[in-house]
Amino acid sequence: MIHSAPPGPGRLVVVGIDPGTTVTGYGVVRREGQKLTLLECGVIRPTAKTPLPARIRQIFEGISDILDRFDPDVVSVEDVFQGKNARSALILGHARGAILLAAELRDLAIAEYTPLAIKKAVVGHGSATKDQVGLMVQERLRLVAPPRPNDAADGVAAALCHMALGHRIHVSRRPA
Amino acid sequence: MIHSAPPGPGRLVVVGIDPGTTVTGYGVVRREGQKLTLLECGVIRPTAKTPLPARIRQIFEGISDILDRFDPDVVSVEDVFQGKNARSALILGHARGAILLAAELRDLAIAEYTPLAIKKAVVGHGSATKDQVGLMVQERLRLVAPPRPNDAADGVAAALCHMALGHRIHVSRRPA
Repeated sequence: MIHSAPPGPGRLVVVGIDPGTTVTGYGVVRREGQKLTLLECGVIRPTAKTPLPARIRQIFEGISDILDRFDPDVVSVEDVFQGKNARSALILGHARGAILLAAELRDLAIAEYTPLAIKKAVVGHGSATKDQVGLMVQERLRLVAPPRPNDAADGVAAALCHMALGHRIHVSRRPA
Repeated sequence: MIHSAPPGPGRLVVVGIDPGTTVTGYGVVRREGQKLTLLECGVIRPTAKTPLPARIRQIFEGISDILDRFDPDVVSVEDVFQGKNARSALILGHARGAILLAAELRDLAIAEYTPLAIKKAVVGHGSATKDQVGLMVQERLRLVAPPRPNDAADGVAAALCHMALGHRIHVSRRPA
């Protein structure tokens, strides 16, 4: 559960990202004092049946465009991975690499959170369903409906998680 | 085993790459008529103990520099992955994504070969050791010694594999 935002010094803009090779969700959240505002959310959906390098380029250019438009203080990236098989993990890593690279090339602060940490921070427990995440995102940001598709809500949730747990900034994982 | 190079139309330059988050090997090979020449080989070794995003950036910028200097006709990338665990695969995917992106952003042709295909093409069988790959690379390119470290030889081998099997060009893997 995200409790009241700490009284941060002024304005904070976080871009949250839920990486995927077929759908990458994102959400841009601004905090001013106690007030949270959703500036934009959506998905990057690379052209279907396109070779992997072209998909990675579309994700890289889509994220680059968002970062250029919002110039966030922090990019909060979901540390996707919960026991899928090695092949899926390898492919997913390609998308995630392109996303981290887009942020790193702009010298932006990068935070990474596990799906569990994001659910705990946003819903209050790690077993939350996708719909529950969407509803909590809706409530926290006073939206008329949960962001659609769910991937967009997951991107927003990654941003909200950083607002709540901002201590993990710059703590990137080491290569295995 | 690489047999005599097909009598290609003029000059072909291939950059071969063996991706890794700690060491990425590469080799630049030129074919003119029947003659193969090693233009350069080496490794990109990101700063140790650096956060993953910074390592990915170093790999991306290192590969980008090589591609800009040699403007190859083809980038031949080893399709690393032989049953490691999912976490290792995810991390490795980050490096590979940055490499494919560097090539794709330059609109270069990309070919991908499994480690097995590369060993078969260069040594003649898929169970070749790293030393055997290095020795065959040395022989094919008339070097005074095998490239060191082995990762550099693996990059050169990826380039030679494409010289031998060039049919897989543009056949990138689909996302899982």
